[in-house]
Amino acid sequence: MTDPVLIEVLRGAIVESAHRGAVAVFDADGKSVWEIGDTSKPVFPRSAVKAIQALPLVESGAADAYGFGNRELALACASHSGEPAHVELARSMLARAGLDGSALECGAHWPSNHGAEIALARAGELPNALHNNCSGKHSGFLCTCVHSGIAHRGYVKADHALQDMVRDAMQAVTGAIHGPDERATDGCSIPTYAVPLKSFALGFARMATARGFGPERAKAAKRLLAACMAEPFFVAGTGRADVALMEAAPGRIFVKGGAEGVHCAAIPELGLGIALKCDDGAGRAGEAIVAAVLAKLLRADQALAAKLLELANAPIASRIGAKVGGLRPTAALN
Amino acid sequence: MTDPVLIEVLRGAIVESAHRGAVAVFDADGKSVWEIGDTSKPVFPRSAVKAIQALPLVESGAADAYGFGNRELALACASHSGEPAHVELARSMLARAGLDGSALECGAHWPSNHGAEIALARAGELPNALHNNCSGKHSGFLCTCVHSGIAHRGYVKADHALQDMVRDAMQAVTGAIHGPDERATDGCSIPTYAVPLKSFALGFARMATARGFGPERAKAAKRLLAACMAEPFFVAGTGRADVALMEAAPGRIFVKGGAEGVHCAAIPELGLGIALKCDDGAGRAGEAIVAAVLAKLLRADQALAAKLLELANAPIASRIGAKVGGLRPTAALN
Repeated sequence: MTDPVLIEVLRGAIVESAHRGAVAVFDADGKSVWEIGDTSKPVFPRSAVKAIQALPLVESGAADAYGFGNRELALACASHSGEPAHVELARSMLARAGLDGSALECGAHWPSNHGAEIALARAGELPNALHNNCSGKHSGFLCTCVHSGIAHRGYVKADHALQDMVRDAMQAVTGAIHGPDERATDGCSIPTYAVPLKSFALGFARMATARGFGPERAKAAKRLLAACMAEPFFVAGTGRADVALMEAAPGRIFVKGGAEGVHCAAIPELGLGIALKCDDGAGRAGEAIVAAVLAKLLRADQALAAKLLELANAPIASRIGAKVGGLRPTAALN
Repeated sequence: MTDPVLIEVLRGAIVESAHRGAVAVFDADGKSVWEIGDTSKPVFPRSAVKAIQALPLVESGAADAYGFGNRELALACASHSGEPAHVELARSMLARAGLDGSALECGAHWPSNHGAEIALARAGELPNALHNNCSGKHSGFLCTCVHSGIAHRGYVKADHALQDMVRDAMQAVTGAIHGPDERATDGCSIPTYAVPLKSFALGFARMATARGFGPERAKAAKRLLAACMAEPFFVAGTGRADVALMEAAPGRIFVKGGAEGVHCAAIPELGLGIALKCDDGAGRAGEAIVAAVLAKLLRADQALAAKLLELANAPIASRIGAKVGGLRPTAALN
């Protein structure tokens, strides 16, 4: 099955490029609310499931033991932009467990925030693993290891006890088998598993409602999503789409993007989870699709829906800042 | 018509993302040699046609008057990476016409070459219009204006005499009408026209063979493609796919990418022109498709074809540099 075009990219009045994709919206009982395209196809969720991967940090008691509040938990679920506040918070999380950046096994890269990158260069510095967009997640992993008495070295490997905990959480929440046949390696060196797209929609409906969870998991899931919605900057960074979407309706929308055009989201008040994949992996399309899907599901709040649709219709500017085109959701998203 | 998947993006052994597209290969008589997908659909060629847009620079006599050699002509056809050698050459081209960077109307952006960007930041500088990847093309435009006695101000506008010259060249070479209905604005503020993809394949077959051109245009076309093939670094920059492709067979392959997944190419020894568009606009796919198409067309040279196929199968690495996936052309490109 060929997924439909969900986002058109216009230059002037002409469609220059087009993005196909699939969307799944489910409730926590596994009822399909809205599906577009092939929602059964295996998708690597990449960073879009970091909130589920952070469950062991809370459930193990590590988050409480180290006194983590909303910001630390948001950073544990983040793909941050490497801005100074992100880097410092990751450093302080590790320090609470007696570690520093050298324990991180995610690798280093320059901040995705351009101002932060230039400032780092101007200071004559090079990026380290704390600047990696996944350093908050990895700091959470390391804190979980230390608090649980697990030797942390090699914590990124599929057969490490920490990854067993993460995989168990992923399987329980999504209901999908995460076996060796589904496994590959993410950019930050941890395993990522390709399972049906709709499993993530179900998983985030459960995360938002805690339906079907025991009391400890229920508390952890609600706490993690609430932390992200309370501190969206620490989930992403300045000017990022996920921040704009969560700030559009504080406490009412959870959104998290991942590499290769994946987005997961949840609307707690409706008890819904959302998962989508742009087939070609374009982040710009994933962001526009999730904004359009949220606008449709929240259409009862007209002012909010209008704000979300504006984010779905992102402009494209020339190098002198003139608007020369933009993204446009297709009728498939109406 | 839905274009076929041409490039799969693998993570481990699993297809993570996929890119659809269309490919046109024509000879200079307009004979179709190989077509995939919808080659009649209008496509903005963006920067992939800079060599055609540079014809007036040579035909007007400006290139000779200012003593331009291969490097200057290559830069006039370039989307360069903003490395110091590119910036200095653009500056010197303008100086020959008595101008400086302030005459450029393309806007400024940071160099796409990461090392050049960081070096600029470390030096406490900001990018100017000379760093714009299109500054060579714009310098060529300005030199054409000055040499031809045309007031250069506003040279990026669709109704400026310089853009008339450029549009006339584009129409004559591609055989496609470039009217107001086909027009939008490129990232560097000049007009770009969406015309059938196959027109560009025909156009580059003509550029490579000069068939159907008068003697002045024939000379100019051959000189421009020869300059690009002789100085590929000045057409793109360090580590860029177009450089690797042209360096794989010096003087035998012309390649030029444009934004939104477009590539044009030519194989003079076969008298063929190539144009392709990745439907979703992904540059990584455009680069892999053109490499695979060149490998197929040049398969008689097995060593070269193997080298080109290796470039079509670009690896994807994790942040610690481990290979975790890669691009793979589909059977549609065999």
